[in-house]
Amino acid sequence: MPELRKDLITDRWVIISTERGQRPNDYTTVITSKNNAASPFINGNEHMTPPEIYAIRENDKSANTPGWKLRVVSNKYPALTTEGEPGERKEGMFVVCNGFGAHEVIIETPEMTDRLESLPVPTIVEVFKAFKQRFLSLKEDDRLKYVLIFKNQGFAAGASLQHSHSQLIATPIIPKEVKEEIQGARRYYDQHNCCIFCDLITQELKNDNRVVYEATEMIAIEPFAARVPFETWILPKTHVSHFELTNDSHLEHLAVAFKVVMQKLNTALQFPSYNFVLHTAPLQETLMPDYHWHFEILPRLANVAGFEWGTGCYINSTSPEEAAQSLNEIAV
Amino acid sequence: MPELRKDLITDRWVIISTERGQRPNDYTTVITSKNNAASPFINGNEHMTPPEIYAIRENDKSANTPGWKLRVVSNKYPALTTEGEPGERKEGMFVVCNGFGAHEVIIETPEMTDRLESLPVPTIVEVFKAFKQRFLSLKEDDRLKYVLIFKNQGFAAGASLQHSHSQLIATPIIPKEVKEEIQGARRYYDQHNCCIFCDLITQELKNDNRVVYEATEMIAIEPFAARVPFETWILPKTHVSHFELTNDSHLEHLAVAFKVVMQKLNTALQFPSYNFVLHTAPLQETLMPDYHWHFEILPRLANVAGFEWGTGCYINSTSPEEAAQSLNEIAV
Repeated sequence: MPELRKDLITDRWVIISTERGQRPNDYTTVITSKNNAASPFINGNEHMTPPEIYAIRENDKSANTPGWKLRVVSNKYPALTTEGEPGERKEGMFVVCNGFGAHEVIIETPEMTDRLESLPVPTIVEVFKAFKQRFLSLKEDDRLKYVLIFKNQGFAAGASLQHSHSQLIATPIIPKEVKEEIQGARRYYDQHNCCIFCDLITQELKNDNRVVYEATEMIAIEPFAARVPFETWILPKTHVSHFELTNDSHLEHLAVAFKVVMQKLNTALQFPSYNFVLHTAPLQETLMPDYHWHFEILPRLANVAGFEWGTGCYINSTSPEEAAQSLNEIAV
Repeated sequence: MPELRKDLITDRWVIISTERGQRPNDYTTVITSKNNAASPFINGNEHMTPPEIYAIRENDKSANTPGWKLRVVSNKYPALTTEGEPGERKEGMFVVCNGFGAHEVIIETPEMTDRLESLPVPTIVEVFKAFKQRFLSLKEDDRLKYVLIFKNQGFAAGASLQHSHSQLIATPIIPKEVKEEIQGARRYYDQHNCCIFCDLITQELKNDNRVVYEATEMIAIEPFAARVPFETWILPKTHVSHFELTNDSHLEHLAVAFKVVMQKLNTALQFPSYNFVLHTAPLQETLMPDYHWHFEILPRLANVAGFEWGTGCYINSTSPEEAAQSLNEIAV
């Protein structure tokens, strides 16, 4: 029988229905990608992107020239821009705000590589360190309230370019779902005087049927109310609210955890499209005892459909326990 | 410059950024669908579906035999089932509920047709009447709290079968986003002593830059905070909270509105995949002065990406004013 499960933090319901997985399908899709020798993100094509905001280079070569290991540039097709001011105002019944913010691209490698997890661990560490640097720098602008770092990997996850990159969008407002997650965590803290994520880690280690990775500093689990098959969260075991306050040695542990988890997912699901989303405390908040940063990884095996659009409730055809079992059978 | 817009009812932000629409793309997709002579939904294949719950037949032929115009059957791969009881309980820290509910398929036509809007208006009227009948029938089970009717049209909208059909899922809980929409509408009513949707209709008719269809009983608009390009809502001009309380003559007006709006969208977007979702009052609620049923139509031109997963905030590359202008240039 299917089950309705409530997410502990956000009160979002999901339906776990394994029968849904057996549906026949009339559609066949073929997705092809260009052999992108002209990628705007490869070494030598620096002129094809806006000027760099941050870069890692082995030598002292000047900005926007070849010889880099990682570059952060403004998105050429930005959702929000650094010009102007937020300027919230009314338009008749409606509330509107200038599109002030930032939209950056983290180019993870100078060579044409299409998956972050295929890079060596030290390179992945540099990517996470670049995330941290960008948080620290954007924090100085107090008009920015939230920074979301995310990855769209593959067509089904909304990617338009193949060359491995992540993105960052900084907003002058705290988005609704971020607010709700924080409020949910605060409610739990007020009741139990403990961080909900810290308690979750303890409970999941005890249950031991949804843990898919564990090492000294990091843990990865299939969440109890997973929205999609093989949804996976990576959390630091030590309580830290802000990603940018994580020390560099912990970022090394994170890189290892990410690589191992993605290798397992790639084996189980044959290199799926996926999104990852870094959930972290709002930029201008001081230390929060009730919030705990983490990565949410969402393999994109099916399209979001009408029921989800109408309810915010996801139908998931693989239980997180089954997914965890499959992942734990894969040796990396 | 891009704009951040707040949805009046749910406080959900969207980013309207027309520059995003100019991005290059590495990916090409080809979607093919079977020539489905063996569709479980065609006349004569009644044995391929679970027994019918409701049907429209021209003659007195018995159930589950050929000769019908419309059938409603249980989904063979249900997200929720009518067996058992809701039975909410705790599992450690978590809340879980049996997958009690209903999941039905409304087979809109006995012939292999792949779009509802291509059917004649009287047939579309029958489909909406069938929706109404199902609400009235499911209402008798007070364990069911909400009924969502929706359509997944085409692969990108999450459809698995091509033959034109809608779906219905009845849940033992009121889903989060439904609750939020109702709360938002109630807040507005408490402040203004008027239904927010009625006020919205008045304001949009006055603005006249987002209205895409208007007739005596129905109106269609591009909402101010549209989540996706060409998102379109159809609303009755007269206040009614529950879809099932709409009289049959208004359903005829709705069928005309739906057909015209979809023909415009199909011309503008070359027969896109789309979802529609019927937003209506919870099943067991009495008349609500603060809620107003409506259809939300979401063309699915792009995949949901990481930013949306992390924030609930959508990036839309076409402003609703531009979309309205395009649709208004199309004569139907």
